[in-house]
Amino acid sequence: VSALNLPSSHLYEKLAGEVAGQIQSGVFRPGDRLPSVRHISRQKQLSISTVLQAYQTLEDRGVIEARPQSGYYVRYQRQASAALSEPRASTRGLKPEAVNLGDLTRRVLDDASQPGLVQFGAALPAAELLPGVRLNNLLARQARSGRVLPHQMGTAQGCPELRIQAARRAFLAGASLDPDGLIVTNGCTEALHLALRAVCSPGDLVAIESPTYFGILQVLESLGLHALEIPCHPRQGMRLDILQSCLERFTVRAVVAVTNFSNPLGCCMPDEHKHQMVEMLSRLQIPLIEDDIYGELAFGERRPLVARSFDLNGNVILCCSFSKSLALGFRVGWMDAGRWTEEVKRLKIATSLFSPLLPQLALAEFLETGGYDHALRRMRRTYAMRTAQMGASVLRHFPAGTRVSSPDGGFVIWVQLPEEVDSLDLYKEGLSSGITLAPGYLFAPGARYRHYIRLNAAIMSIETEWAVQRLGMLAGKLMSRQENR
Amino acid sequence: VSALNLPSSHLYEKLAGEVAGQIQSGVFRPGDRLPSVRHISRQKQLSISTVLQAYQTLEDRGVIEARPQSGYYVRYQRQASAALSEPRASTRGLKPEAVNLGDLTRRVLDDASQPGLVQFGAALPAAELLPGVRLNNLLARQARSGRVLPHQMGTAQGCPELRIQAARRAFLAGASLDPDGLIVTNGCTEALHLALRAVCSPGDLVAIESPTYFGILQVLESLGLHALEIPCHPRQGMRLDILQSCLERFTVRAVVAVTNFSNPLGCCMPDEHKHQMVEMLSRLQIPLIEDDIYGELAFGERRPLVARSFDLNGNVILCCSFSKSLALGFRVGWMDAGRWTEEVKRLKIATSLFSPLLPQLALAEFLETGGYDHALRRMRRTYAMRTAQMGASVLRHFPAGTRVSSPDGGFVIWVQLPEEVDSLDLYKEGLSSGITLAPGYLFAPGARYRHYIRLNAAIMSIETEWAVQRLGMLAGKLMSRQENR
Repeated sequence: VSALNLPSSHLYEKLAGEVAGQIQSGVFRPGDRLPSVRHISRQKQLSISTVLQAYQTLEDRGVIEARPQSGYYVRYQRQASAALSEPRASTRGLKPEAVNLGDLTRRVLDDASQPGLVQFGAALPAAELLPGVRLNNLLARQARSGRVLPHQMGTAQGCPELRIQAARRAFLAGASLDPDGLIVTNGCTEALHLALRAVCSPGDLVAIESPTYFGILQVLESLGLHALEIPCHPRQGMRLDILQSCLERFTVRAVVAVTNFSNPLGCCMPDEHKHQMVEMLSRLQIPLIEDDIYGELAFGERRPLVARSFDLNGNVILCCSFSKSLALGFRVGWMDAGRWTEEVKRLKIATSLFSPLLPQLALAEFLETGGYDHALRRMRRTYAMRTAQMGASVLRHFPAGTRVSSPDGGFVIWVQLPEEVDSLDLYKEGLSSGITLAPGYLFAPGARYRHYIRLNAAIMSIETEWAVQRLGMLAGKLMSRQENR
Repeated sequence: VSALNLPSSHLYEKLAGEVAGQIQSGVFRPGDRLPSVRHISRQKQLSISTVLQAYQTLEDRGVIEARPQSGYYVRYQRQASAALSEPRASTRGLKPEAVNLGDLTRRVLDDASQPGLVQFGAALPAAELLPGVRLNNLLARQARSGRVLPHQMGTAQGCPELRIQAARRAFLAGASLDPDGLIVTNGCTEALHLALRAVCSPGDLVAIESPTYFGILQVLESLGLHALEIPCHPRQGMRLDILQSCLERFTVRAVVAVTNFSNPLGCCMPDEHKHQMVEMLSRLQIPLIEDDIYGELAFGERRPLVARSFDLNGNVILCCSFSKSLALGFRVGWMDAGRWTEEVKRLKIATSLFSPLLPQLALAEFLETGGYDHALRRMRRTYAMRTAQMGASVLRHFPAGTRVSSPDGGFVIWVQLPEEVDSLDLYKEGLSSGITLAPGYLFAPGARYRHYIRLNAAIMSIETEWAVQRLGMLAGKLMSRQENR
């Protein structure tokens, strides 16, 4: 639209340029009515004739059209309508050398909203296993009931109905929590964020699992905290002997652990280890921030306990959410902040004031009226099968030397590629074949997991086997390219 | 329930104690079914007979009851059912000497969810002026349509539909924004929080209006930022001459201003002042964080411009929300972070990942399909009338020497009491008469506004005149008590 770069000497040409710019960026789309001449005139303190002249200029250029008795409308033009529907170019053509971890995380997360991609990237649950329609209907019913109207204020802690249901779920994980002490958050991310702000100051050192969920790294990075990686045993989670010796050598302000089905490993810390860890940290007065987002998705008979169940003095901050097992998009998490409860309430007010009420009420009603345990049993069985299938499929199609995790819960698998394969190259190649995945770079502060990838095994479609095969082929190609150098 | 303090020597007694505790804290309420004996046995790794014995102990004590073929249920008991419905005692009996500003803010905000109180405290809009039912119905329709299911992931930036509508509103305030650059937030609070984190580090100095909205002080406090108070002219907002001289003397990292209808003063910075301020700050490379939450509630003919409309190089971060003029409870705000956009996107992911989609879609549909400008006109007229009425009423009923603001927009009034009246005493006395208000302590870091109060004039009922009269009488009593000392 270079014809619209007008000299700014005339007021009407400046206005015409502004309006054209707004049309170009999609603020006003083809068919939309533009603000009335009078409205613009008053707002911008321009004369009616200046605004008219601006609109007529745009009309002359074929950008807008006047409709009698109605006003000015944006004309249909190829350019303007294509701009919004095209997939974003920025997701593609990633260059390893230009990588910034924060950007890479966002790209992988943004891939999750691209309907055309095979979703091995973000840890998205399987739609068909979730009571999505039922939850939406409950939300709709709550909204229509008028019990809560949109102007109403909530409290920093959230709806008592949901806090009661959350405490019931926690009771089945061994923790007796007081609903009055719980705080509803915008997903588990906000819970982790608030927990870390409550117990740490910028520059502090926080012990984390290695590998760990990239969301935890992002929160640490955004708060200016440093990470101390504690290696994980592939079946038992964080190595307590190493943790202990690190705590003796460094001033650690907090420990963050996904105790049940750690992401990406899928391993579960044995309950007796949790007990030991809670006692060790309590003795040293170092808070444990426990993320139990996968706890209910155990493949075995028994839902493992939370470390919080061994806590005697409020030293464990438990962070949970319904994102993995019910409704990621509702953004409803919750936390018990132990002895930092008052501080976390203050921080919640200063971060988001309160969380939307209707999603909380819909979830509370669903949890109260049942069906959750039934849905969970189905999820557990299915995810156990799908992670096993995908693991087998990876071993079948990927280059020799590839190894896969065999998780005890959750729905992701962790794949170790031959050393020659860089996971960022594979991510890039995968994208150009329409497949997204989570490169290993995301799971530690350094490039320690350069040749690892995490695959989401939750979503299974007719494309799944093909996509794994394709990735395996691409990995093989990257390997031989590397060998030929 | 002292009979339930059992010796812990027996496993079943320990379990009985735990279950009784959960009943006492309302996790399981009268009539609720308790987890099955088998479930508890598996979870807690106790024998079936131990769990049965625990349940039977509680049955013997009349706490729970067995129903044939169905399980164990909590019995109806006076105690347990009263616990949740009672108003919280903690809101009352506030002691001035024990005050912590953070707690006081939370108390005033929590008052807003107490249905029994006359709401002069938090800046709640008037329910009857808002399209509450329509918005809830739109939300319900969006939910039922299944267009977005609860398991779906959103992007850090939010729904394009809403961002386009937000850019249109901004265009009417003089700013041409690119919807692709906007970020949807959990209310304006999250927007301010993200903006301050993007441009400041803990310990930095931030210039703010004096008096200012307490939410801004809370965000500053929670981020470890220091505040530099710039006095406000009662009709023109922040004094630019004083700002300038302060910027010469101190290292200020950011300026935060509610440019249109500053809260609590209700004054509007003249557009030419905004222009000057933007130029001054751009020259000095100090970012302006503009909070325009009240901009659409102008009493005059014309909606004032945003300072962002004078910005040429992305130095102004504009923070807005639909909380005051549409739906406080939806928690939907938005921001244009200027040259900090990429940084703010990263911070958004690390703070709350993304915002719930359905409230965004409902708001976008409402804004698209119209009725908003009509509703706004009604709000403006009504709030102009109500703030004037309440101001007159205060002058009529409060002790001589009381002064009130006369706002040009928004819906709060700022009241200067005679020096003898402490606003915290008046808050306390008001509460015991069933009236909440915002004491002046909240509006500056120090006790500078000790004898000021902010009154919300939006909500008018048959009690309003009585409540103002009552407060005036209480203020008079406090005054004479002070004089007699």
